[in-house]
Parts: sequence; C-alpha cells; structure tokens
Amino acid sequence: MRIGILGTGNVGQALASAWARAGHDVVIGSRRPDDQELRTKLRELTAEGVRIDSPAGAAAHAEVLVNATPGTASVALLRTIGAPALAGKVILDVGVGFLEDGTLSHPVVSLGEEIQEAFPGTPVVKTLCTIDRKVMVAPDSLEGPGTVFLSGDDAAAKKTVRGLLADLGWSDDALLDLGGIATARGQENFALLFMGIATATGTYEFGIRVVLPG
Amino acid sequence: MRIGILGTGNVGQALASAWARAGHDVVIGSRRPDDQELRTKLRELTAEGVRIDSPAGAAAHAEVLVNATPGTASVALLRTIGAPALAGKVILDVGVGFLEDGTLSHPVVSLGEEIQEAFPGTPVVKTLCTIDRKVMVAPDSLEGPGTVFLSGDDAAAKKTVRGLLADLGWSDDALLDLGGIATARGQENFALLFMGIATATGTYEFGIRVVLPG
Repeated sequence: MRIGILGTGNVGQALASAWARAGHDVVIGSRRPDDQELRTKLRELTAEGVRIDSPAGAAAHAEVLVNATPGTASVALLRTIGAPALAGKVILDVGVGFLEDGTLSHPVVSLGEEIQEAFPGTPVVKTLCTIDRKVMVAPDSLEGPGTVFLSGDDAAAKKTVRGLLADLGWSDDALLDLGGIATARGQENFALLFMGIATATGTYEFGIRVVLPG
Repeated sequence: MRIGILGTGNVGQALASAWARAGHDVVIGSRRPDDQELRTKLRELTAEGVRIDSPAGAAAHAEVLVNATPGTASVALLRTIGAPALAGKVILDVGVGFLEDGTLSHPVVSLGEEIQEAFPGTPVVKTLCTIDRKVMVAPDSLEGPGTVFLSGDDAAAKKTVRGLLADLGWSDDALLDLGGIATARGQENFALLFMGIATATGTYEFGIRVVLPG
C-alpha cells in the first residue's frame, strides 16, 4: 500500500519504519524535505526505503495519509495540501494537541472530528493515539495484550486501517471499534490519564486493556 | 469507620451497601431524608443498617464523606454544608459531571480540583470514577484484574481511601496512585472513552487494566 506520513517526529518515524519493513511504499512529508539535518535524522528510514518529500508530495503519493503532526498544527497543515488533493484518500489520524499549559487543544470537539469536518471527502480514522510510539509498533513488548481503539464514520476506511494495524502486530481481537468519528473524543481525552499513568509508573511504554465481565 | 455518602443514586447506593456490609457505620445524605418514596427506594440499604439523614447530617457523621452526586451539582451542595463543617474530614470524590449535550461539565479543570480548591481544609481524593457502580463493589466480577486510580494531595487521606477500596475488594496492586489532585483530570476525562467502550462492548461492567512492559 502507498502510505504518506505527515510528521517527522518520533511517532511519524516509528510508523514509517514499521510499515516500510512490512513491505509498504512509504513517503514521509516535511516542509523542508531537502534540509540536511532532517536527512541525517531520517537516514535510518531512508535506508529502509522510505522517501522524503513535501507534505503535498507525501499526500499525492498516499492511499492512506497518516497525520502524526502536533494536533495544534494538523488542520492548518492539511489545508495547505487542500481538500481536492486529499479527496478519496484515507486519513489515519494519530494526532493529539496540547497547549503550553499541558491542557488539550481540543478538549471538547476532538481533532479527529475537526479534520473530518474540514475534509468531508476524505474519511478520517482515529487510532493509536492512546499509546506511545514504541508500543504502537511493538504490541508484544507489553506483559499482556493491550487494546487499540478505532473511531471513524467510514467502514471501508476502518477496514483499511485494521489491515495496517495488523501489519504493526496488532491482532484483530486487540482492536475495539468505538463507532463514528465523534468517539475520537474519548481516545484523545485519554491523553490526560495517559500522562498520569506515565508519571506514576515511570514509563510511557504501557497499554491499557479493556477487561470485560468474567 | 464513619462514612457519609452524598448522593442517593445507583453509585451512592452501591457504595453505601458495600461499606455497610464491610462493617462500616454509613449514613446516606438526601435533601429529603423523610421522603417516603426515597425511604422505599432505599429500604434494602436501611435493612443493612445504613441510616438516612440530610446532607449536613451525613457530613457531620462522617470521617470520610463520599461525593456521589452529579458533578454539575456537587460543589453547590457541598457549599450548603460549608467549609467549617467539612474541615478535617476526607472527601472521597467519585463524581463526574455531564452537560445535556453529553460533554463534560469540567473538561479542563476537574471537579476534584474544584472541590479541593473550594474546601482547602478538607483533603479530597478522587477515585473509582473510571468504572461502573457494579464493578466498583465487585472487582472480581471481571475476567481479569482492572486498575483503579487515586488522585489527591494528602498522603494520609489517600491511605484512608486505600483502606476503603480494600474493603470493596480491590487488592493493593490494582491501585495506581497518579499523584496530586490535578491528576483527577485524567480520571474524569476518561469518562468519554468509557462511554465509547460501553457502547462498543454493550456493557458498562468493564474495567481497564494498565499493561506494563513485559
């Protein structure tokens, strides 16, 4: 599958590497694709076959475009690409936005919903935003199975995303489809509890598992 | 221990019953303690030794006062009792507030913090608000162990609350102390993900377990 990734931070890098290793054709987008410092930072990725292009170039390449940019900047960046260039693609949104005071930039209406509303011709699937980048690509690194959530209005887009999650190592019974894109609120707001748990346990590398009645 | 419970809904009833059965001296507070309909509704509780009094009466009785009222009404109710009458007690806060549109009444600064700020002489411990009332009092009803979180600024108050959680059946290693009362934001905001999981799984009777690195 042709995957574009917006965001050259830790999350974008981890996903780009994992999907390239799984055999996908991955382009990572940066506003400065020719910057030498960036090229040095991403040299392990390019050695794995990941190419670096502009955000618009990554989007043009993509069947699935991953938003791994800071949630405070995501919609503005996507607008520079524009709705016509995004139409018909799937946006896999893992972004969460924090303000400087540590509160969420989208405390009521989620970033996932905001992106979906801005680009109605592009189905958005929110997922993976409840776990750290290392766990995203190594679900078996945990002491037991965690749960990954999906939110989105489009069934076909969710099926595509499930396939990409499987390529990261997530078994189908670890995935919980929460419903429409409005349920992204729950996933994004979990970031506050995530930070509390990370502080309390001393690690970002944890998951949560939904435990059902026995 | 002398426990007062504010809130005669499902949560208040479940906790009152469980702690009464554990041998505690429980008074449940209502603004209409002599209302016949309420007396009928709570007759199983009174048969277990729980007494019904006014909110102020329940507070006067209490070493630990449990807030199980709707989060939209909690601070106003506590103000009718007043800071002097609450001084030196522990408030065990399980409340979460929802507005009519389903969004949180305290999306940024938590209810737990708001109560703590309103009553600085009364340590507040936030807990149990990430699970359903049935799971609160029957942790072993789940297919595996869940995690219960604590938030609060006062170590002695948290120790007291840990004892009361043990009396509900929560083992010490199920409890995760997140830190100060500001971490109540994470617990309360989990309500949005809770609702999504409940809709997706068809039950409110679930927990979440923090899964650490293997």
